[in-house]
Amino acid sequence: MQTQIIHFLKHAQGYLSGEEISRHFKISRAAIWKNMQDLRRQGYDIVAVPHLGYQLVSCPDQLIPREIQFELKTKIFGKNIISYDSLSSTMDVAFRSGLEGAQEGTVVCAETQTKGRGRLGRNWTSPKGKGIYMSIILRPSLPPTDVARLTLLGAVAVAEGIQKACGILPKIKWPNDLLINNHKVAGILTEMSAEMDRVRFVVLGVGINVNTPISLLPSNATSLKVESGKTVSRVLLVQEILSSLEFWYESLKTDGFEPVIAQWKELSLTLGQRVQVIDPSGSVEGEAVDLDEHGGLIIRNDSGLRIQRMTGDVIHENVS
Amino acid sequence: MQTQIIHFLKHAQGYLSGEEISRHFKISRAAIWKNMQDLRRQGYDIVAVPHLGYQLVSCPDQLIPREIQFELKTKIFGKNIISYDSLSSTMDVAFRSGLEGAQEGTVVCAETQTKGRGRLGRNWTSPKGKGIYMSIILRPSLPPTDVARLTLLGAVAVAEGIQKACGILPKIKWPNDLLINNHKVAGILTEMSAEMDRVRFVVLGVGINVNTPISLLPSNATSLKVESGKTVSRVLLVQEILSSLEFWYESLKTDGFEPVIAQWKELSLTLGQRVQVIDPSGSVEGEAVDLDEHGGLIIRNDSGLRIQRMTGDVIHENVS
Repeated sequence: MQTQIIHFLKHAQGYLSGEEISRHFKISRAAIWKNMQDLRRQGYDIVAVPHLGYQLVSCPDQLIPREIQFELKTKIFGKNIISYDSLSSTMDVAFRSGLEGAQEGTVVCAETQTKGRGRLGRNWTSPKGKGIYMSIILRPSLPPTDVARLTLLGAVAVAEGIQKACGILPKIKWPNDLLINNHKVAGILTEMSAEMDRVRFVVLGVGINVNTPISLLPSNATSLKVESGKTVSRVLLVQEILSSLEFWYESLKTDGFEPVIAQWKELSLTLGQRVQVIDPSGSVEGEAVDLDEHGGLIIRNDSGLRIQRMTGDVIHENVS
Repeated sequence: MQTQIIHFLKHAQGYLSGEEISRHFKISRAAIWKNMQDLRRQGYDIVAVPHLGYQLVSCPDQLIPREIQFELKTKIFGKNIISYDSLSSTMDVAFRSGLEGAQEGTVVCAETQTKGRGRLGRNWTSPKGKGIYMSIILRPSLPPTDVARLTLLGAVAVAEGIQKACGILPKIKWPNDLLINNHKVAGILTEMSAEMDRVRFVVLGVGINVNTPISLLPSNATSLKVESGKTVSRVLLVQEILSSLEFWYESLKTDGFEPVIAQWKELSLTLGQRVQVIDPSGSVEGEAVDLDEHGGLIIRNDSGLRIQRMTGDVIHENVS
């Protein structure tokens, strides 16, 4: 009911009289007043003027279904949103939801994480209310060997979402980091539950430093607020990312992986650079020349040999 | 305490006086009597003869830690066993245990399953107390692309365990079925939780028709009892399988995948046969000529072309 009242006020874009609200929802003026009081406590700035009625001045920038789903244009992504104030990790909770059969496009998000995860078991700094920490359940018809593609797709979609929400287009550092001015602003993480020959589900994790002050970030990181100089709406950013993800995910089904690779290359910071890739099997040094159809990085070493890597840490050697 | 009493009686291999038991466990004669009554209710046949004491005549053939862990020789496999009377699926429960951090070698087993799973989402018939329905958690250092190897390793280990426990060595039908006289007696299922570039854990599922009467089995299936003409101890069989799994799993770490492949080929019913492999991408017909290093089946079709398949249903064309 409160969600409906908020959406009604949002659509009104001006004052709504108590009488109109009362008629629309078939509730008493006293009940309206009680709901408005309650919504104010939740962070909604609602003014009430005698003879004019109620007006919604501002909404809390909270990652809750009521806010994210308002005028969300997607068909699958974000139709089911599970919001938490605090979680150990959105990845763990989304993974369990996946096991329990949660529908494709389900979003799990939290205002803060106590054990936010990055790639290879690393930590993801998740200060409360400052960033986006969310995990999305996908159920693609892919063999496990093709799932790396979804990491690249995620990077492309999140980069575009960031551009739409705050005007800056990040670059992609292979395989899963988004950088602005050579500092990390977001990361993509994909985990799957799979049989040998088919994926049961994938959890796509997105971590973004949105309004995080520099003092709360690791030394090589930045945030959208630091880079753009203004506070960015997390709700708007999530909406843009969900739209962009859905666009690319649908394109994967109809047009295959080629368009994603092309767009990834367009945004790539890594290709064409001299890099060092460190993974458990050792270190490879050379020029990052291409991305293969599995999402692997192709490095041409100094002997001219082309070497493929599916994992590893990339050091861009000409970046300070 | 009851587990210790049972193990004490088992080691005794004869009568143990109430006095000896009382001294050993520092409990009263009345407490001993109460425990014996309780153990009898759990299916232990314990006779009590005046002046001689207690003797353990037989144990229930139940898949519980007390039975499986008695004189179990493994170091990792089966050190942690979680037994259930009934489960939807041991795969689901093991998967959740894996997410919660269960140690490598943890075994989840059930006397019956209401939604026993086979490969590709198929059903596994699991009548109560008749078969082995268990799932084992592995934490290998493998990229997701190499996990298919564990299915083959599982097939080899379970085939050997069956031979040790009941004298019949099953043949392996690619990728994961064990057959006796061309009828399915067991299946291996592997599922994983993985990031793009590293496996978090694998659940290896083992389903075996042990003492299942033919009337409870699907038409193409058989059981060890049907084939051997005698009741097979499920506890002994689980112990042999855990030993064999540990042996091959350790060999994988020290000697790589080659020995597993060699043994798999030795036991293979599929190689050398004319087969039809049906998978989502279509059907391939020809001779099954080899297994590749990823565990894929190589088929030479009638044009002499070698085609690899990682998944699919195999029809052995010269088998009725």
